[in-house]
Amino acid sequence: MTRIEKVKKLLRKNFDALLISSIPNIIYLTGFAGFSTLEREAYLLIAKKRNYIFTDGRYFEVAKKNKAFRLIGISLNNSFGQALKEIITKEKIKKLAIDEDNIKVTELIRIKRVAKVCSDENLVEGLRKTKDETEIENVKKACKLGDLTFKYILSEIRIGTTEKILAHKIEVFILKHGERISFRPIVAFGENSSSPHHVSTERKLKKNEIVLLDFGVKINNYCSDMTRTVFAGHVDDKQKKIYKTVLEAQTKAIESLKSLIKNHQSVTGFELDKIARMYVESKGYSSIPHSLGHGIGLEVHEKPSLSPKSKDVLINGMIFSIEPGIYIPGFGGVRIEDLVLLTAKGPQIITRANREIIEL
Amino acid sequence: MTRIEKVKKLLRKNFDALLISSIPNIIYLTGFAGFSTLEREAYLLIAKKRNYIFTDGRYFEVAKKNKAFRLIGISLNNSFGQALKEIITKEKIKKLAIDEDNIKVTELIRIKRVAKVCSDENLVEGLRKTKDETEIENVKKACKLGDLTFKYILSEIRIGTTEKILAHKIEVFILKHGERISFRPIVAFGENSSSPHHVSTERKLKKNEIVLLDFGVKINNYCSDMTRTVFAGHVDDKQKKIYKTVLEAQTKAIESLKSLIKNHQSVTGFELDKIARMYVESKGYSSIPHSLGHGIGLEVHEKPSLSPKSKDVLINGMIFSIEPGIYIPGFGGVRIEDLVLLTAKGPQIITRANREIIEL
Repeated sequence: MTRIEKVKKLLRKNFDALLISSIPNIIYLTGFAGFSTLEREAYLLIAKKRNYIFTDGRYFEVAKKNKAFRLIGISLNNSFGQALKEIITKEKIKKLAIDEDNIKVTELIRIKRVAKVCSDENLVEGLRKTKDETEIENVKKACKLGDLTFKYILSEIRIGTTEKILAHKIEVFILKHGERISFRPIVAFGENSSSPHHVSTERKLKKNEIVLLDFGVKINNYCSDMTRTVFAGHVDDKQKKIYKTVLEAQTKAIESLKSLIKNHQSVTGFELDKIARMYVESKGYSSIPHSLGHGIGLEVHEKPSLSPKSKDVLINGMIFSIEPGIYIPGFGGVRIEDLVLLTAKGPQIITRANREIIEL
Repeated sequence: MTRIEKVKKLLRKNFDALLISSIPNIIYLTGFAGFSTLEREAYLLIAKKRNYIFTDGRYFEVAKKNKAFRLIGISLNNSFGQALKEIITKEKIKKLAIDEDNIKVTELIRIKRVAKVCSDENLVEGLRKTKDETEIENVKKACKLGDLTFKYILSEIRIGTTEKILAHKIEVFILKHGERISFRPIVAFGENSSSPHHVSTERKLKKNEIVLLDFGVKINNYCSDMTRTVFAGHVDDKQKKIYKTVLEAQTKAIESLKSLIKNHQSVTGFELDKIARMYVESKGYSSIPHSLGHGIGLEVHEKPSLSPKSKDVLINGMIFSIEPGIYIPGFGGVRIEDLVLLTAKGPQIITRANREIIEL
């Protein structure tokens, strides 16, 4: 069954048609990744029979090439609202599902003028939770280049270099391999590493300091994501204790996942998060100030979620990060992040870089 | 007056407080550019007296450094809705303005539970329309590197190269200069250039073909944007006629702007668009399938708009593109795009690359 057929099958149950606005969902269903992620340049409409793509003159040529969608041209003389109204009438759509997490208030006002709307219940995001073979291959390729990038960047870490220089080198390395970053690399030295999403600065690296590296690669629109924390010299006892706790929290989560899957028990994102979180707390550290992990694919962060509020059941075909962290303001932080693919045989760690303490 | 003071002054008139969610607006008011553009990681609230930033544990350290905003920590135990409600009560906010072009339906539902909302009337976007000195300097710097990139890429155009290779070379060149692209470069050969927003492919360049190059640089968060169309060999009569028409349309728009400003007449985006558009049509070509131009700054596309529906009056301090184009399906297209800064002395073209026909 094609992805579009899967959508059609699901939409029959609850609504007559689905309006798709999010860029990852558009890429998922059309394969075309050329629309801006910052501006609204296209919508898809999946009705019971036909499928439509609404876009403007800049994209007519490319849209025409995709035979699965009928092109509806948007222009000054044919606004999206007008065009949508026509299709709503033609297709006899009573209830139009929209993505409430993506549609903006101004857009809702326009859509409501021409259609009765309801929530799409994250239908496409639901399908995207589990990956098919091609998707898995792409994420694995991205992880592989990520591992290579880590190996390369280790050789570039030296006293006196800056966070910005390293972040830049990561990006250039990935680009030189013909691929792109999946997000701006996070490079944090010393006490800066206590900020989980630190923005790289001109700060210079000093001896024995923590170096936190969080980066990802995007290949064929699919993302990787990994974090390693290494030491620019000797690791001291305080640093070592933090590191070992984080690594153990990650290992515990992965091992629990293994044994639960082996015993055919279902496991939720909430449960896995709790295992790592409680371990960190049990060692006297503050709780992890973020989720234990997140799904990854066309987006760096997508479903399933591994967090204290997650209800996602972890099943075969899912790829997600497991990334505990401990952060001590004024001192620094450690995070170790790997991607895990869940298979019938159990979890497979698809980021391969060394997880043991590295002293440079 | 600081930017925040300007916002406060304007909000007094119509509402008690302003909720800011768009990333460019957050960068504009905080100077911090580390939040994801794809996910909601922070909000600002500008009330009559105090200013607040709502964000989660990943950003506490950086948020604390900005003394203009009080940090309100969002966590599992303190949702954005709860936190907002508390501030709404504390600050006695009766009417909260939101950015309806940015706030999503799900968010609106949450916000409406705790506050009475109204539209922010694009207050911050209005301020961003005209640029201060630092902003102008940044855009000019970005344009300068753009010109350098154009000069470099000309030397890399050879028969047999692909669109993807050139697009990649543009990106690596900019990155090597320590800066970033403002959007993915558009490189289109031959008939592909008839698609105004073509996505680069493996297509190889053949002799005498059109090469359309549209790219931009981002420096200190400010964007440049330029398009040049060159010829891989000899330009033929049909190509030449199209090129000359596009160049003349652009020249006419710029000259009209000059003379109107000189005569202290006001001019709107609509009027300027019409001048170029009518010229293109008068030569027997289809109308330009996009706007004549757009403002640029923290975003590649922002206010003012130069389009058939624009009501924006063009005033000093604005920076916008002027980019007519002619596109013939199956044959190819030509677009010439430059950035113009409007000063008291008239329009200043801040992209400097050669606009005459280039035969390589």
